[in-house]
Amino acid sequence: MKNSYSALTKVFANIYNLESAKAILSWDSAVMMPEGSSNIRAEQLASLSSVIHSKITDPKINELINTAEAAKSNLNEWEKSNLELIRHKYLHKASVPQDLEEAFSKQSLKCEVKWRTARKESNFSMILPEFKELLNLVREIAKAKSQEFGCSKYQAMLDCYDPFRKTEEIDQLFSELSSFLPDLIEKILAKQNQTEYQAIPKIIYPINVQKKIGLELMKSIGFDFNCGRIDESTHPFCGGIPGDIRLTTRYREDEFITSLMGIMHETGHAMYEANLPEPYRDQPVGGALGMSIHESQSLFLEMQCMRSKEFSEHLKILFMKNFALDESIWQNIDIHKNICRVSKGFIRVDSDEATYPCHIMLRYDLEKKLIDGELEAEDLPGAWNDGIKKLLGITPKNDAEGCLQDIHWYGGDFGYFPTYTLGALSAAQFFKTLEKQVPDVKNDLQKADFSRIMDWLKTNIHSKGSLRKPQELMVEVTEEPLKTSYFKEHLEKRYLS
Amino acid sequence: MKNSYSALTKVFANIYNLESAKAILSWDSAVMMPEGSSNIRAEQLASLSSVIHSKITDPKINELINTAEAAKSNLNEWEKSNLELIRHKYLHKASVPQDLEEAFSKQSLKCEVKWRTARKESNFSMILPEFKELLNLVREIAKAKSQEFGCSKYQAMLDCYDPFRKTEEIDQLFSELSSFLPDLIEKILAKQNQTEYQAIPKIIYPINVQKKIGLELMKSIGFDFNCGRIDESTHPFCGGIPGDIRLTTRYREDEFITSLMGIMHETGHAMYEANLPEPYRDQPVGGALGMSIHESQSLFLEMQCMRSKEFSEHLKILFMKNFALDESIWQNIDIHKNICRVSKGFIRVDSDEATYPCHIMLRYDLEKKLIDGELEAEDLPGAWNDGIKKLLGITPKNDAEGCLQDIHWYGGDFGYFPTYTLGALSAAQFFKTLEKQVPDVKNDLQKADFSRIMDWLKTNIHSKGSLRKPQELMVEVTEEPLKTSYFKEHLEKRYLS
Repeated sequence: MKNSYSALTKVFANIYNLESAKAILSWDSAVMMPEGSSNIRAEQLASLSSVIHSKITDPKINELINTAEAAKSNLNEWEKSNLELIRHKYLHKASVPQDLEEAFSKQSLKCEVKWRTARKESNFSMILPEFKELLNLVREIAKAKSQEFGCSKYQAMLDCYDPFRKTEEIDQLFSELSSFLPDLIEKILAKQNQTEYQAIPKIIYPINVQKKIGLELMKSIGFDFNCGRIDESTHPFCGGIPGDIRLTTRYREDEFITSLMGIMHETGHAMYEANLPEPYRDQPVGGALGMSIHESQSLFLEMQCMRSKEFSEHLKILFMKNFALDESIWQNIDIHKNICRVSKGFIRVDSDEATYPCHIMLRYDLEKKLIDGELEAEDLPGAWNDGIKKLLGITPKNDAEGCLQDIHWYGGDFGYFPTYTLGALSAAQFFKTLEKQVPDVKNDLQKADFSRIMDWLKTNIHSKGSLRKPQELMVEVTEEPLKTSYFKEHLEKRYLS
Repeated sequence: MKNSYSALTKVFANIYNLESAKAILSWDSAVMMPEGSSNIRAEQLASLSSVIHSKITDPKINELINTAEAAKSNLNEWEKSNLELIRHKYLHKASVPQDLEEAFSKQSLKCEVKWRTARKESNFSMILPEFKELLNLVREIAKAKSQEFGCSKYQAMLDCYDPFRKTEEIDQLFSELSSFLPDLIEKILAKQNQTEYQAIPKIIYPINVQKKIGLELMKSIGFDFNCGRIDESTHPFCGGIPGDIRLTTRYREDEFITSLMGIMHETGHAMYEANLPEPYRDQPVGGALGMSIHESQSLFLEMQCMRSKEFSEHLKILFMKNFALDESIWQNIDIHKNICRVSKGFIRVDSDEATYPCHIMLRYDLEKKLIDGELEAEDLPGAWNDGIKKLLGITPKNDAEGCLQDIHWYGGDFGYFPTYTLGALSAAQFFKTLEKQVPDVKNDLQKADFSRIMDWLKTNIHSKGSLRKPQELMVEVTEEPLKTSYFKEHLEKRYLS
């Protein structure tokens, strides 16, 4: 009956409101909350999570889903996708016993807190006991979900961040990447070494000026400050919800490229959220289509648009206008060369778009083994160092620049990492399609005119929410499944031509 | 059984966490939220309220309360009070049908939004239809609660803001006030007119300097910035929760006394919250003891301490040190006279401590009649103007400075107003008691040393949470029921001696 479907949408609208309350509180935790208030906040969030959990796993929900599915023919395509996503969410929650879920929540919080110190002191053994316990809980959760979905344990975890994405697809793409990327990086580095370039001088770039430039760019992209804001936090992110988007960045006075590109990256995420289909705002089908597509939107803006040769021209004018540095100095600086440097480093978040996939492939390989039980927690540092040596030919001098650098695993997030690189591949493929459909679009970048670009993204990607599966969306928009060739072509064009 | 009591505390701890999530979101709405996000926020808050409502009114709660009450003898005095408060909260929620509660929530939001325009345009007829409907819903709620508690309708509404306070007590106190206050005001004004004083000059007082002074004073009072923060908002308030307190104030460049006294007032509220009994933090007995005692804490700090002659000496030194005004000018300014001026005005929030009770007595009289049906919404402007004329001898030139000035009624808050004046009376009585017990305490004020004062407040009032009823606490601390004489004495001493 349509009534069952309609009853489900009411429950999920309610759940959406509670989730969105959590989103604002999480933003507050990172941006506004006084340090001493973190325990109280953890309790608030836990209470909210437990309310949401019992609302989704209420046995009535299963009955409603069954009745609604039996009468699916009465639903339009949005409603059908929504119902499928509701079933998907229900199975994810219902497959994990509540006490396991709670044990995981507590342990991940505990482990994450400990990780901060362990990373600071580069001391893996300090975190090992907490991490082992957390990993065991994650393995149990993965097992429970894999039984529910009839898939591998890692597949079940990946599905939490990138619903319906298959590990087979990733294996294929990553195998292609690893076949050409190491060589390509060497070629890029060789070319880079032969080319001189003038670095942007190290002077003081006042933070209020950096902020002004950031705001100006956000406005030109179309960010609506009536329904969102930007603040500062230790780790930049795009939080909040559609209709109340909360971006953050961080500034340093001796350098402005990082904060600016950070803002652009997060604005890419923000525009996706802002343009999600309003009529389904509070339903699963109205939400973003997994983390790969989300990341494709931030990288589309940052890597494809902002770091392009064309946009660099606009950036130079902006910098000239705003920073107190002699115009003749700016004239001699190639902004594009400055913002597109490749180098082999240890830290993922500081790395460039060419070496980034190596960092991801390492993590993907290790987290699969950790979940499957092929790798134990205590063997992680060794496996990490072997892996990064093999991929980039470098050896970390300690675990802080090795396996302790990222928060993900120590906060219980397994299955998230591959979405960064799937996002990069998707962004290149989307941009190529845009160029085919709007051949002179790069001229828009030189003028910082984002209207045609954002319209294209909105029409083809944002406004579709989760109507399609990720693979379907890719074919619908680009007429091909996700490939590595467009990313390869992009790197070659940018760094070797 | 003790088990029932313990089960109740778990439910109420959970409810507390959800309430405290609401408190942070409400702060965010007033301080951080972009303007266009208010509808989404309203939905988040409504979903949270509905979860809380169903948790409290769950029929299991009534059973648990009954079982716990039957075994009350096993509980200590804190637990006994807690159980009584749990019953009280349960009855308040359970007595109002959920559809009436929801209709009220929606209508109060609608009416409040309309009120903003109506006040701006000073147009009472614009708000009348919405206000009539809201008043009818409030009357229904008052009727339902009055039947549950076996009391008058107004008594039932008062009980929402000041639990266990009786209208008979207020009637008696307000009748005393109205017998001496009008005369006293005339005497104060006559004396004030005969005394010359040099006003603080109208120059630019930079906001960053005002902020610095405010922070310094908050620190000297003992506000813990590790568990709280101060920001700006249109209407200053003390929000958040113990352990994560969120104060706000507002600044203007041409004047600094208002923002400074605003900060001190809100810090009084904040210190009460911060010092509530930690072991019962998430239980009703660990919460503040109604709005009268809450207001007594803000007025204790603002009116009794900060506006005292002794503290004025310290303020003068602070101003001299921080504001770029010639020292000789400051020497000639009597800060105390500047911050203790009495005048008959129309606007409650701008009024001084002597005339303030007149504004309150007017509202108390009118809101009782509105709830009882003795006064209809359309007759409010006339009744207001008659009342203020009688009490202060002045006539508003429009409804914006008359019955449209306060948000309370148009947001559905009836029964709140008297707590402001009960707070002022309590503050005077508490301060008198402190002076008896610590005779040289005023010397501390001259040195801005708040340690003994805050210790006294913490020991006698804050740390007791809601263990006692308001009347019991007053007798326990001051050895007398609440009286008007200490307030009268305070005014006479400050303004006539």
